[in-house]
Amino acid sequence: MKLFDGGRAPNPRRVRVFLAEKGIEVPLVPVDMGANEHKQEAVSSRNPLRRLPVLELDDGTVLTETVAICRYFEELQPEPALFGKGPLGKALVEMWQRRMELNLFLPVGFAFRHLHPAMKGWEVPQIPEWGEANKPKVVEFLHLLDGELAGRRFAAGDAYSIADITGMIAIDFMKPARIEVPAECRNVRRWYGEVSARPSASA
Amino acid sequence: MKLFDGGRAPNPRRVRVFLAEKGIEVPLVPVDMGANEHKQEAVSSRNPLRRLPVLELDDGTVLTETVAICRYFEELQPEPALFGKGPLGKALVEMWQRRMELNLFLPVGFAFRHLHPAMKGWEVPQIPEWGEANKPKVVEFLHLLDGELAGRRFAAGDAYSIADITGMIAIDFMKPARIEVPAECRNVRRWYGEVSARPSASA
Repeated sequence: MKLFDGGRAPNPRRVRVFLAEKGIEVPLVPVDMGANEHKQEAVSSRNPLRRLPVLELDDGTVLTETVAICRYFEELQPEPALFGKGPLGKALVEMWQRRMELNLFLPVGFAFRHLHPAMKGWEVPQIPEWGEANKPKVVEFLHLLDGELAGRRFAAGDAYSIADITGMIAIDFMKPARIEVPAECRNVRRWYGEVSARPSASA
Repeated sequence: MKLFDGGRAPNPRRVRVFLAEKGIEVPLVPVDMGANEHKQEAVSSRNPLRRLPVLELDDGTVLTETVAICRYFEELQPEPALFGKGPLGKALVEMWQRRMELNLFLPVGFAFRHLHPAMKGWEVPQIPEWGEANKPKVVEFLHLLDGELAGRRFAAGDAYSIADITGMIAIDFMKPARIEVPAECRNVRRWYGEVSARPSASA
């Protein structure tokens, strides 16, 4: 098996952090997104959406989509459980993974892609008004998240999960998107500090 | 347990179709989204994001997010499996559920919310240029999907899954969003006709 990796880009990093938490090593095929290599044959023949990461199994089966790749490894090696345990535990992780993704990760991505000068040729058309419209959505969600994290250690409960990975990387992504975590969101800052200090965060 | 339901809106319908496929009956609490009832106390106290559907368990635990609610029922009652079987089967369903959601359901929603006159007070600011930018993304994905469906019956393989539910409802949602399935996408039309003919589609 091999994982076509995209370096510093957020989605490839989500999978690398996940694998680090699992203690699973997968051979990486580096793809230079800065040089548009993900739009060339090696990736586009495996993922017509031309996005990374892409996992290729030994029989040639291709898996794309960050969370699908993570789930494959969760099913192969359930411990430590990063998608939750039991019906309610799994549902709560899914709920928070999705909240982090739809209300934080995606809006941060829209702000970055529609406002950053370097994204002009990547996001066509680049619509600055849409980029700006996403910034208050991010801040509003961080306030909601702050209230939730007042009562628990991690995004979905007492255990670290894929929801924390998505959230941490979304907050890292706020830097190039030029959005700041509000100073009053002390619980978000405490949680972010803790998840960022895990060895997996540097994967 | 009770399910706060939003009538014709796409996400509440995804859960109702899922439950119909499972043969599970859950008491519904109707919420009139047209009258903005989802922004009032009954919903907002349970889901600060003020979105539907919302599932409340008998002990008061609240689950939100369409796919998280579906996964809860999948874990409680695994058959018929709508999230796939085995590590690879589950990963492929997750991959196609996400492709349907991120490349079809969401762009259709953006086109609807940013272009339809009735959404003016709902989507603030309404950015018509962003709505228009999503229409070609939808058409491009339908061509990709058409090629995939040439080789198999359902979105993620030989078995019907949650990926088909998300895809079917996204295509239904194209009508108010004023986007048409291209005539040449014959495999999409065949698949859509089949999934729409299932009794669950009217849930």
